[in-house]
Amino acid sequence: MDGLTKFAPRPTGVGEMFQLLRDGKPRTRAELAQITGQARSTIAVRVDVLLASGLLAPAGEATSTGGRPPATFVFNADARIVLAIDLGATHVRLAVTDLASTVLAEQQEPAAIADGPGPVLDRLADLALDLIAAAGRQVTDLAAVGVGLPSPVDHTTGRPVSPPIMPGWHNADVPGHLRRRLHAPVLVDNDVNIMALGERQTEYPEIDHLLFVKVATGIGAGVISDGALRRGAQGVGGDIGHIAVPHGPQVLCHCGNTGCLEAVASGGAIAAELTRAGVPAETGADVVALVRAGNTAAIRAVREAGRTIGSVLAGSVSLLNPSVIVVGGNLASAGEDILAGIREVVYQRSLPVATQHLRIVASRSKGRAGIYGASVMAAESVLSPAAIEALIP
Amino acid sequence: MDGLTKFAPRPTGVGEMFQLLRDGKPRTRAELAQITGQARSTIAVRVDVLLASGLLAPAGEATSTGGRPPATFVFNADARIVLAIDLGATHVRLAVTDLASTVLAEQQEPAAIADGPGPVLDRLADLALDLIAAAGRQVTDLAAVGVGLPSPVDHTTGRPVSPPIMPGWHNADVPGHLRRRLHAPVLVDNDVNIMALGERQTEYPEIDHLLFVKVATGIGAGVISDGALRRGAQGVGGDIGHIAVPHGPQVLCHCGNTGCLEAVASGGAIAAELTRAGVPAETGADVVALVRAGNTAAIRAVREAGRTIGSVLAGSVSLLNPSVIVVGGNLASAGEDILAGIREVVYQRSLPVATQHLRIVASRSKGRAGIYGASVMAAESVLSPAAIEALIP
Repeated sequence: MDGLTKFAPRPTGVGEMFQLLRDGKPRTRAELAQITGQARSTIAVRVDVLLASGLLAPAGEATSTGGRPPATFVFNADARIVLAIDLGATHVRLAVTDLASTVLAEQQEPAAIADGPGPVLDRLADLALDLIAAAGRQVTDLAAVGVGLPSPVDHTTGRPVSPPIMPGWHNADVPGHLRRRLHAPVLVDNDVNIMALGERQTEYPEIDHLLFVKVATGIGAGVISDGALRRGAQGVGGDIGHIAVPHGPQVLCHCGNTGCLEAVASGGAIAAELTRAGVPAETGADVVALVRAGNTAAIRAVREAGRTIGSVLAGSVSLLNPSVIVVGGNLASAGEDILAGIREVVYQRSLPVATQHLRIVASRSKGRAGIYGASVMAAESVLSPAAIEALIP
Repeated sequence: MDGLTKFAPRPTGVGEMFQLLRDGKPRTRAELAQITGQARSTIAVRVDVLLASGLLAPAGEATSTGGRPPATFVFNADARIVLAIDLGATHVRLAVTDLASTVLAEQQEPAAIADGPGPVLDRLADLALDLIAAAGRQVTDLAAVGVGLPSPVDHTTGRPVSPPIMPGWHNADVPGHLRRRLHAPVLVDNDVNIMALGERQTEYPEIDHLLFVKVATGIGAGVISDGALRRGAQGVGGDIGHIAVPHGPQVLCHCGNTGCLEAVASGGAIAAELTRAGVPAETGADVVALVRAGNTAAIRAVREAGRTIGSVLAGSVSLLNPSVIVVGGNLASAGEDILAGIREVVYQRSLPVATQHLRIVASRSKGRAGIYGASVMAAESVLSPAAIEALIP
């Protein structure tokens, strides 16, 4: 309905046929011909191409309907591996997965992102090489690397853009640095975008309009609309942390403006407010610990931060009309208080037509949405129709 | 990059081949075979299907390279007609166009939308039948009708949903009513969505991230992201008129909330504010007339409304990262004042990475974006790959 569909020649169709096989079910050549409506001879050529690539493997014989039983073929997700990296302000999580994003080995450790790109990326590469070995695989098995950074990222170049909480990382060649150590293509995106991808892929595959909101040291969102991540013209969409809070306090934000959501309701902002009120806290993690310990001032502050976030999310609901808002990040792990505050304001402030079917829920991925999403992003770059077409000699 | 691509069997490929021909250039069977990579025999069958539908027509012979010169074929945009209707709060515009959205006949008249759906839709059908005759065509030539309404619309049913400025229209069967009179499929959408479609198609075909903002009796937006209109889960996305203005006055809005953008900065709101200040005005049109007459209070009020709209659009820029914001509606026709106010706040309030390549411009379609968009929406429903595939016996 939205203007002309762009025409793209399809020299072979093997890329699209392969998408069908990604569900992991074994199929015969005859079944593939029947589903795709293509000639048996065409299918035979495509199956040979995929067998040669290793991405398709023989899976035994189907039941015969008379004569020699036909061979079946199945997606070989184990043919290559993917490295997923989720770098936060204070921690890093790595996983080695297969091409279907099943985790084979996983690790996390504290990280000091302020050390700058050189030391941090070298450490990541060391950890990655160890983790690949721990998974019993070779670095030559690595098909792609997916990285999430707590920063705006130019997705086309993979470089951080003016990252407010990553001093020294502006325009750093993250893909080049990791590629030199790991010898595989590297895709980089904002951490919240990959969390949105991961949460949707693992928990909401049937939801086409989803907003993932991360509340931690920073506040950001990943926008999924009509089934795909929408990054915007420069890839910096979803940046709700610097939207002005309606009728909020005119607190100075590190971006240079005043009254930004992140300056009022992030983990650090809540901690500072509690400290001023005589309850010492330095970080969002401290706030979470206080809430878990039943500190009423902390519980009240977190719920109020939820209301503040809700006042900005109400505008996002009006603009995007999502059917699910997922709230993640360490502040969301503090329990229902932040969600309760968000729900209170969004349901009161948005029009009924946009909220009657809207669910506002906590992330279900227990902090692992980022590595799932990084794996999905990297695997997709290897398995997309265009990537598979490129296998053809 | 965004999860698994859904697999769709392509029984013939004629729908996609036809998209290529929509550029209006004559082509031979051999050229079509070369561009699509398909066999000559396949192309011959597809060309025959399209010739039989009337959507493709012979266009003479190409230059021979020896032997009989090959026949060429061209998209016959004149094969059928489309009716485009843009219904505003106080006016209606109709156009009869060909399948490439070229206007063949056009008309506008005042409309009293408050008369309710029965009388208004009957009048629209009468006008449509007269206009089709004036264009020298038959009602049997009508392939589809596209309608824009100043209301949230459930795009799947074509019915208005709780329209704040259309009393009596909630859940009205607009498509059924018009179909009974005009005997063609009817597609209905929010007026701002079709303005976004029309402005993009005619003025910004190369821009993939565009926000169209209408400032008139109401305020709303149409969101184009990654090249397509994004309507959201219930089709009510883009509803910026009911976003709370940061630090705005707590004016009661007709939606029941306070401080909505529409309650502060729409044409009616500006008129009411001028009246209170001793400059009598009833409608947005009165405000435009005062601005054109050089009334400084009106000019100041319009620029301030622009700043208010900008304070909400800054949030939309952070969330969507568009590269163009087009401002239309009758208040935008008052000149540069509203744009100047919008630019002032958006460029000050959004992060540099999102604004350094952002253009904020007035609509170029002189009030006709709505009928262009309604025509594009209707034509697309007839010419999309799926619709063309459905032609196959």
